[in-house]
This record gives sequence, structure tokens and C-alpha cells, in this order.
Amino acid sequence: MSQPVMLLLLLPLLLTMGDSKMLIERHSRPSPEAYHRHREQFVQKETNLALGADIQLTANETLVNEYLMSLKRAELAEGFADPYQFVPARHFFQVLDKINASPLYQLIRRMPKGGVLHAHDTALAGTEVIVQLTYEQHLWQRGTFNGWNGPEFLFSRNAPAGAGWELVRDVRERTGADQYDDAVRHLFTLYDEDPLNTYKSINDVWSRFTAMFFSFQPIVTYRPAWEIYFREALRQFYEDNVMYLEFRGVLPTLYDLDDKTYTPEEVVEMYINVTEQFKATHPQFAGTKFIYAPLRNADNQTADQYLTIAERLHLQYGSYVVGFDLVGQEDLGRPLVEFADMLLTLPPTINFVFHAGETNWHGMQTDENLIDAILLGTKRIGHGYALQKHPLLLDEVRRRRICVEINPVSNQVLKLVADYRNHPASVLFTTDFPLVISSDDPSFWRATPLSHDFYIAFLGIASAHQDLRLLKKLALNSLHYSLMADGEKEAAIAQFERSWSDFIELTVEQIQAAQNR
Amino acid sequence: MSQPVMLLLLLPLLLTMGDSKMLIERHSRPSPEAYHRHREQFVQKETNLALGADIQLTANETLVNEYLMSLKRAELAEGFADPYQFVPARHFFQVLDKINASPLYQLIRRMPKGGVLHAHDTALAGTEVIVQLTYEQHLWQRGTFNGWNGPEFLFSRNAPAGAGWELVRDVRERTGADQYDDAVRHLFTLYDEDPLNTYKSINDVWSRFTAMFFSFQPIVTYRPAWEIYFREALRQFYEDNVMYLEFRGVLPTLYDLDDKTYTPEEVVEMYINVTEQFKATHPQFAGTKFIYAPLRNADNQTADQYLTIAERLHLQYGSYVVGFDLVGQEDLGRPLVEFADMLLTLPPTINFVFHAGETNWHGMQTDENLIDAILLGTKRIGHGYALQKHPLLLDEVRRRRICVEINPVSNQVLKLVADYRNHPASVLFTTDFPLVISSDDPSFWRATPLSHDFYIAFLGIASAHQDLRLLKKLALNSLHYSLMADGEKEAAIAQFERSWSDFIELTVEQIQAAQNR
Repeated sequence: MSQPVMLLLLLPLLLTMGDSKMLIERHSRPSPEAYHRHREQFVQKETNLALGADIQLTANETLVNEYLMSLKRAELAEGFADPYQFVPARHFFQVLDKINASPLYQLIRRMPKGGVLHAHDTALAGTEVIVQLTYEQHLWQRGTFNGWNGPEFLFSRNAPAGAGWELVRDVRERTGADQYDDAVRHLFTLYDEDPLNTYKSINDVWSRFTAMFFSFQPIVTYRPAWEIYFREALRQFYEDNVMYLEFRGVLPTLYDLDDKTYTPEEVVEMYINVTEQFKATHPQFAGTKFIYAPLRNADNQTADQYLTIAERLHLQYGSYVVGFDLVGQEDLGRPLVEFADMLLTLPPTINFVFHAGETNWHGMQTDENLIDAILLGTKRIGHGYALQKHPLLLDEVRRRRICVEINPVSNQVLKLVADYRNHPASVLFTTDFPLVISSDDPSFWRATPLSHDFYIAFLGIASAHQDLRLLKKLALNSLHYSLMADGEKEAAIAQFERSWSDFIELTVEQIQAAQNR
Repeated sequence: MSQPVMLLLLLPLLLTMGDSKMLIERHSRPSPEAYHRHREQFVQKETNLALGADIQLTANETLVNEYLMSLKRAELAEGFADPYQFVPARHFFQVLDKINASPLYQLIRRMPKGGVLHAHDTALAGTEVIVQLTYEQHLWQRGTFNGWNGPEFLFSRNAPAGAGWELVRDVRERTGADQYDDAVRHLFTLYDEDPLNTYKSINDVWSRFTAMFFSFQPIVTYRPAWEIYFREALRQFYEDNVMYLEFRGVLPTLYDLDDKTYTPEEVVEMYINVTEQFKATHPQFAGTKFIYAPLRNADNQTADQYLTIAERLHLQYGSYVVGFDLVGQEDLGRPLVEFADMLLTLPPTINFVFHAGETNWHGMQTDENLIDAILLGTKRIGHGYALQKHPLLLDEVRRRRICVEINPVSNQVLKLVADYRNHPASVLFTTDFPLVISSDDPSFWRATPLSHDFYIAFLGIASAHQDLRLLKKLALNSLHYSLMADGEKEAAIAQFERSWSDFIELTVEQIQAAQNR
């Protein structure tokens, strides 16, 4: 060893001696026993902090939890050995069959999951409902199924004005029903076998998404269709063990064969009536509520009309129309700040429930919508994907318990995140953060009303350690953070507890039956 | 409106009246003036919090900053309009030419960037250096360039034992030098034109990554080659405006034509000598230091040998061999906790500088390596990609100012993240978090020693608002969090300030010259 090197070697020791704190830190290591004790304490502290850690499990719940965790661990182990086989590391479209065959998914599907607080009016019911609606009398089309837009549809007693209209019944007969129905199925979802190449960017997938509406709208806005569609949606949510739905909608103008059009009020009345009818036959269903959410890509005059409607609905249906929001691709829409002055004129009793930060930009107008949403006093945040890039806002959200509506599958299909393990909610799950899991537009990606999102969140976003307590917490949060009135909320939670007990009891029986076989 | 609906409508008002706090919150909205003033204050507070916000710019720096931000904003605007054109949203291999042509990248390349604190011994110098090394006399090969492993190489005066060996000189002559050199270039980087399909998972890309070493190792571990390689690496780092290198290495056994093998001590001596020679001709270069980092996939006996070497090197070269680490794909290697008892026996003056949490698993052994790294007292964390999934650890890291070494391009190429805007460092950049940007294995992905990572971090990870102050802060952090002794550190920072001033002056001249043209 050379002399200068020898001298340099002594330097750290000499330097250390001048700094007693460093001296202590550097000149002792704990014993293995102390180390492992300390580590154990740390792990315990971390575990106690996680979302759902405050839930106490009964003996029966503990049995179900053991079964649930055995299923979760099996999928984690397979994925850890070969990450390409790990469902949450892949695109939802590529693994949909695998998910549906997963016993973990099937268990989650059977589980009571509380409510859906973030979903949109025209993406509630599965595509088969649309297929069925195209069998209704008096439906016409013009144009073909080629391309992203698809044909133009319209219900009408006689051929609509203009050239090229044919009755769907005739087109279906000509092309064969199976082929026609497949074309409808394909047109009205974003499903694609090669999604990563088909949709290259968020703008790509959103432009397909927006194109879909143009064909879709005249089918569902036919008044009888709208009612069938909404009723079927409730049935599907119920079958997915969702007991409450708080959905956003644009209140489109409905029409019928007699050229009558329907006002926003009449559409709201229809929602209320269909819900009441559904509740009468399904007493475990807690109901629906509505958030009026017109398109954010609006000029001031249009926005002003929206606000007028919002005020009217608030006065007339204040317990059903529980909030106001603006929707559409956030990056391309106008930023919230441009609407702020107008929004501030609304009666303070109108709840804001804004979409904000559904983006992975950082420091651009889109993620900064979060600033306005929160300063405007939003009760919940739709998506809030970019929230963690604003730590001061994150603190405020925690402090004021503003609930963040996380939509995992939506965020992947709409190109915010590829691997669910990178979803920002993964961090939020580590503490008792005010959040719910929701599904946004489940029918557009062939997802069940809530189970697929719960499954992805549980397997791909939560910690490997998080268990049944997390799932129960997510269900309870969805009722707690709803905009139901307090009395309604209490009743819904009581109903949830009954359904949950039934589920636990039934599952324990199934586990024991399987063990005895 | 039905009667029950009418009654429900009154509920929120009735409920509100019982809660005076809610009454206040719900029954007033701020005036537009108050709102915008409040918003402005909030934005200012957020801005002041960000990484680099404590840096004060001189008048000349402000000029350079304006130019820098005009380049950044142009790329952001292009990307916001069409996200598929936004470089950080794409795979590095697909946009490498576009980056190299970017004026923003070119400016960052010219900028003094401080030191590299996270890089590995055999991935420092660009592939052209390897191509040149295959021109050295006495290099033999057997096997072909087909497949991921490539041929076996060996330097030897005579044909090595076994069948099938040929002199590289002869193979090159037969296949044509251009084609041969291209095959070498292809073999020794992960570069691929269709990276998303070629590497389907983290295990895929790591197995290719590991395979590379088998061919690669016997070329560079030839003693004369090792020295050339290291010298060339220093030259390339210097040309990239990196002034200091603190690198990890396995200290492989070197060999020469006379069957002599070289001890770890001799390899360290070589590093020291080459560095001293380089500094003599490049006085602005602050030097190199070494972190001994053998493979984590080791049984206890092997690990024990590593620790013995670590102790020996610490005693003999304590000011040059400044730390200990364990390397290799974390998911597949043994977790740190299994080494804890052994590691605790090391003298407390040996710094730990552990890789930990280079994973997107959550609650698995890999991300929990972070617990052990931090409880074992690591001085810095290599990657820490999963750190935010452990908020208690994150607090501890902040409190103890444990520096996290972020390697953006590495994390994408090695399949942790697809879109850089989702990189967890994006959140860390919003506060004065102890972090540095580094490059890990730049030559394996055809990256420059540090400029590509700086560019990606600045454009794709940082906020759109973050500017020259962030870049200067990152450079200063890289010296501040190095394991140089205090005196060395002060000298390095003083030298950095001089180089920085020169860069600013020169850039101002260039800007003014361009304006006058």
C-alpha cells in the first residue's frame, strides 16, 4: 500500500472523532437479538397503520380470511416466480379470462362490496344489454361497423330523414344475427386483443372512447331503452353484490317515437322511479343517487346553462341529485380554474364532487385541477391519480377526509398506468386514507360492476399482507363517504352488516364442506 | 314530484342545522377575489417546497434558466398535444435518436452535473470500448453470436483448452469487421428495436442482463483490458461533465497471459492508480471511490468470504473503499434480513450503501429489504423504488437524510415502470428530499454516463415548473451525499462551482450570439 493511501485511510477515524453523534452512530451496531426485536416492532407498527387495520375480525371472519389469503398468496407466489403470469402486471384485456377463472376473483365477486361511488350513466350495464336493445322494434341504422365510429343509429316509426337508413332488423337478417351481435359487442367496448398496439396513447384511447358515444347515444337515449338500460344496470350491480350506486350523468335529452323529448327533470324522475321499483323487489338494495356531471369541454355560455340546471335540480331533487361535477378527458378539457368564478356563484348547499388529476402529467393544467377541486371545497375527488405529486393537497385531503375515488381498471385501460403495482393508490393503501374503489365505466372494458376493480386492487395494489379487513374497510368506506343523508347511511350500513354476515356464514359452510369432501 | 322525495329533499338542510361547523362550511363560498388570492398563495407555497427551491439564481443563471425552460416547455407542449410524441412516455430505446437530437438534452449534456453515486463496474464505459477491446491481441472465442449468451471469449497466448476456439481476429476477418463489430455491439447492450415485446417481464430482461456478463466478463477481466476499460470510463464520464464517480463493483478475479490472477487488493490498487493518473491530466476531476458490492445470491459461506474481504479492504483502503453493498436482481436474490446477523458483525466504521426496494412488489421480501437496509443503518439507498409504499420508512429516510439513488432509465429498461411520469421519484421531487439522479448501468442501454438520466428526470419526472435550480440542486446533492471525506467534499464542491460558473458564462455568450444572429 502506498504512503498517501495509508494516510487517507486514517481520515475517516480522525473526522469521526470530532463529531460525537456520528461517533455513537458509527461505533456501535445492535446485537442480532436487539435488531430482530426492533425489526419485529417496526413491522407491527407498519401493519397497524395500513388501511383496514382497525377492523376486528370475528372467529368466522378469521376462517374466511385464511381461505381468502391462501388464494391471494397462491397468485402472488405464481407471479413472484414469473411476473409475466401476474395478472395485475398485464393489460386487463389480455387477462380477462384468467381473472374470471380465478377462485380469488370468484370469492370477491360473491362478497358484499358496499356501493359504487364513481360510475357514469352510459357505461353501467354490460354490453349484452345493448345487444338486446338493438333487437327492439323501430331501430334504424346507416353506415357500417367498419372503423371506430360504427354506424349511426336511431329509433323511429318511419325511416329517418336522409339517405341510407335501413331497419336494424333487416341488416341483422342479411348479415346473420351472430355476426351482427358480435359487431355490436365490439363497437360498444374498448376491448381489443392487442390493446398496447391499438391504443398508443391516452389521446388515442380517449378518441375511440368518445367516438363510441356518437353511435351509442341514440340507442340508449330512446326513452324506453334508457329505462330498460338503467333497470338492467341495477340488476347487474345487485348481482355483483353492490348495494348502492351514486352515479354521474350528463342527463341527455331523451326522445321517443312521437318526437317527444324529455327534460333533465323527467330523466331524474325516471331514475328515481326505476330505483324505487327496484328497491321494492330487492329490499337489500339501498338505492341510487345522482351527481349531475355535464361535459367540461364547454364554453362559458354552455357552462352557465349547466349551472342553471344544477340549481334547478338541487332545489327540486336535492336529496337525489346530490352533487355537481364536470366530465370528459381532463387533459383536453378546460381546466377547472376557468370555471371557478362561475362555480363560486352556486348555492353552497350544492356539493362539488369533482373529477381532478386524472392524469400523469406533473405541473400542468390537468394535475393542477386538484388545487381548484380542493380549494372549491369538493366533497370527494374523482380519480385524483396525480394527488401525491401535490403533498400539501394530500395533507389537506387527509385532514378534511375528502374521499378519493380510485378506479383501477379505468386508469389502466385509459393509459395512465401499465402495471397496477405502480398505481399511486398502492401508497394510499398503507394508511387509513379516505378512499373508495370504484369502476368508472365498467361496461366499456367488459368488467363486472365492481368485482374486477376490487380484485385488482386487492391483488395488485394492496400490500401482500392486506387481507379481508381491507376488503371490508373498502366496502364500509363506500357507504361512509357516500352522499346519502345520515339516516339513509346508517340504514345502509346496517343492511351491509347483515349481508356481510350472511356471506361469511355461507362461505364458512362452503369451506367446511370442501374440507370434509 | 312525489311526497317521499319532497320530504327527503329537506333532510340535508335539517341535518346541517345540527352541525354548526358544517353549517359554516356549507353555507358560504369565498368571493372570486378571495378565491384567486388564496389559490395564488397556495401555488406559491407549493413552489417554495419543491426540490431546488432553495437555490438562488444569479442574473446570468436566470438568463440560462429562461433558455432552458423555453426548451423544456416546447417539449412539454408537443407532448401535451400528442402524448405519443412525449419522450418520457415511451421506451428509452424507441426514442434514443430523438433524445440525442433534442436541444434540451444537448444543453443538459454540456452542464456540469456533479457526481455519479450509483453505477456498476462493468457497465461504465460505452460499448465502443468493448468493440475496441475485441481488437486486442490474443483474444479467442468459441460459439456464435446467436442467442442471448453469445460466444465464449478468453484472452490467451495459445488456444485455450477444449475444442472450437478460434482467434477473434480470424473470425472477424471471415465475417467482415463491420458485421462482427455490430454483433459485439448488439451482444453487450440490452438495446432492442422492439423492447416491449422482446422483454416481457422483469425476469426476462434480467436473465438477458445476467447472460451478458458470462460473455462479457472474460473480455474485461483480462488485466490490461480492465485498466483500459476503467480509464476510458473516466474519460467518458468526464466528457459527459461528471466530475466524480462513486461506483459499486464485485472485484472480479483478473487474469493475464501468464496465468497470473489478481487479488481484490490489486484490483483496488489499479482503480486508485488509474484515477490518480486521470486526475493528474484532468485537474477538474475530483476522483473516484469504490463500494464493494458482491452478489446477493450467495450462500452463507460465500457471504462470509465477502465480509472478510470487505473488512480487509476497509482496513487497508478505508478512504477509497467507502462502503459495502450486495447486488443482483433483488426479487431473485436472498432478502437482506437473511444476511442481517452476519452484517451486524462488521465493524461499525464500514458504511452500508444497500440496494433495496428495486421492485414494484408490495409487501413481499423485496420491498421489505428496505426495512433492513434502513434498520441496519444504510448511508444511502440504491433505487428505493418501493420506498413510498413504506411511509414510516419514508419518514425515517427524511429524518436521517438517507440519500436515495434514483436511476430513471435503469428502472424503465429493467421493467419497473413504463411511463417515466409514473416514476415514484416524481413525488420525491416535490420536496427537499435527500436524493440523487444516477445511471446504474448506462452502457448496457447505450446511455451517456449521466446526461440521459438527468434529461429524463428533468423532463419526465420533475414538475413542469421545476427549472435550472432543480438541476443545480441535483448536482450539488451528488457531491453532498457522496462518501467523500469532508475536506474532499468541500474541494469538490468548490471545483463544481467553478465549472458551473464557466458553463453559465459560456451559455450566456451562446444565447446572446444566437440572439444577435
